[in-house]
Amino acid sequence: MARPLIVGVMGGARAEAADLQAAYRLGALIAAQGWVLLNGGRGTGIMDASARGAAEAGGLTIGVLPDADRAHASEHIRVAVCTGMGSARNTINVLSSDIVVACAGGAGTLSEIALALKHGKRVITLGFEAAGIRGLLGPDIALDAAQSPEAVIRLIQTHCRCK
Amino acid sequence: MARPLIVGVMGGARAEAADLQAAYRLGALIAAQGWVLLNGGRGTGIMDASARGAAEAGGLTIGVLPDADRAHASEHIRVAVCTGMGSARNTINVLSSDIVVACAGGAGTLSEIALALKHGKRVITLGFEAAGIRGLLGPDIALDAAQSPEAVIRLIQTHCRCK
Amino acid sequence: MARPLIVGVMGGARAEAADLQAAYRLGALIAAQGWVLLNGGRGTGIMDASARGAAEAGGLTIGVLPDADRAHASEHIRVAVCTGMGSARNTINVLSSDIVVACAGGAGTLSEIALALKHGKRVITLGFEAAGIRGLLGPDIALDAAQSPEAVIRLIQTHCRCK
Amino acid sequence: MARPLIVGVMGGARAEAADLQAAYRLGALIAAQGWVLLNGGRGTGIMDASARGAAEAGGLTIGVLPDADRAHASEHIRVAVCTGMGSARNTINVLSSDIVVACAGGAGTLSEIALALKHGKRVITLGFEAAGIRGLLGPDIALDAAQSPEAVIRLIQTHCRCK
Repeated sequence: MARPLIVGVMGGARAEAADLQAAYRLGALIAAQGWVLLNGGRGTGIMDASARGAAEAGGLTIGVLPDADRAHASEHIRVAVCTGMGSARNTINVLSSDIVVACAGGAGTLSEIALALKHGKRVITLGFEAAGIRGLLGPDIALDAAQSPEAVIRLIQTHCRCK
Repeated sequence: MARPLIVGVMGGARAEAADLQAAYRLGALIAAQGWVLLNGGRGTGIMDASARGAAEAGGLTIGVLPDADRAHASEHIRVAVCTGMGSARNTINVLSSDIVVACAGGAGTLSEIALALKHGKRVITLGFEAAGIRGLLGPDIALDAAQSPEAVIRLIQTHCRCK
Repeated sequence: MARPLIVGVMGGARAEAADLQAAYRLGALIAAQGWVLLNGGRGTGIMDASARGAAEAGGLTIGVLPDADRAHASEHIRVAVCTGMGSARNTINVLSSDIVVACAGGAGTLSEIALALKHGKRVITLGFEAAGIRGLLGPDIALDAAQSPEAVIRLIQTHCRCK
Repeated sequence: MARPLIVGVMGGARAEAADLQAAYRLGALIAAQGWVLLNGGRGTGIMDASARGAAEAGGLTIGVLPDADRAHASEHIRVAVCTGMGSARNTINVLSSDIVVACAGGAGTLSEIALALKHGKRVITLGFEAAGIRGLLGPDIALDAAQSPEAVIRLIQTHCRCK
């Protein structure tokens, strides 16, 4: 059985309308490729929007929740992984993803970008300031900035071709 | 979107042939019901056998690995959740399952039975001594003993009817 | 710097008076040996009683809390490790202990006994039914049953002499 | 019993001589205040240097290791908390600290800064570019930049006076 590619989509629990729309379209494009969308699982912000986009396009959605139960899960998450671990689940999110897309977010999203880079995962930012991270961690980190969901998909195709 | 029932199947990384066959059949029966099989994800013992049974029957298999990558995952696991947390992932296994089936195993499986009961999850044993657990934790715990994979399925149907 | 021995003391959040008194005396005896007491950190049951015994005897007490903050910590815990991980912290408790003492408790304590045995830690029960665990896991597990706090100390001295 | 203040000191497993010296002096100053030093516990880089500074000054040192045992712990760590959780322990580091000092480091340290800010912990940087983090997360985050270990101590005294 060939394993489908797992794309992690990170981003804030609160986000502006344009960022939510981008996350929704990103989710739909991920599903259209036959990839699995994995995110933080909650029914708010980038998590909910990206899961909705993928689910409505018929994709498989996995949500790694900070919670011990599904009470706050997005209804668009098909399989909720209940960790009961709060932010420690951020590490699980990045380890479980073949590649990580960081949408608009705050400190939580920044922690996931940093953890992904630490563990050798490639990160693509969409609506998240990439220059600042490069300023902090050096010019050679495995980080690309995309300007649109479509550009994210092309970058994933480039980087994950040989998997 | 109606969420599918998630059945956690726990059990030893090493097991005897009869227990592996029972786990394989249990996995197939779970898939035939349209349920998701969730287990510890590795390519050995009860984990591999139950995943193979479910995958060959067309079911969705989720493996919550103790490892930080998929190197030791069963090839029959469709989505591997890489925790990098060792036995701490046992808690995730039980929290993420609607109901837990404990197949033959050792101390790790016993820890999952105990964690499941602590968190209010119903446990069905198959080839695991239930009387001893009742002796330790009292007669009122939410634990059933089944004698066959078919009996496990009937117990799950009874207990999860209203979910 | 010679590291002090770390003795993990597990047990229920609710317990009867005799078990609380035994836990208190056990804590005091651990401190008198110059050992560190490590437990689950909360201000109830065996956790609070054992921490109080050790702290009043001048010992160092470490509490590995399930919580993300100290709101429910025992006042007798000197260093609270805040995990925010719920029962997943049970694994940390046993991995961090040189030897594990299981006092009276329920499913949570049983999970810690099982996790300790899985990870090669010796377990001493005090007021916890040891025969049942041996019935489940076999006669060769590294488990001793003590009838008093003083007997626990003697068993620790026997097993940890060469560390 | 008044709980001592716990100061988390984060930083890279590899670091330059000047940063190691600063971490050593920081550890010594923390111990001189009667505070507990908590760090990632390993015997390399900022972790080892800060633990050595604190231990040689008679302070209590707690190391929250990514590992399941103490094999890679600094010899200057008095109590090693063995998590077996890899980078997921970064969350424990920040939750367990009253205040977090970020010394020179890379992606792992950046993840700890981000997690600390997310969980409402104040962060003081020493030899870590603070402007970049402010550029990413906004001007109002609870982050101070210090130019010396002595300045770190003064900032901690200012912020933690009322605890």
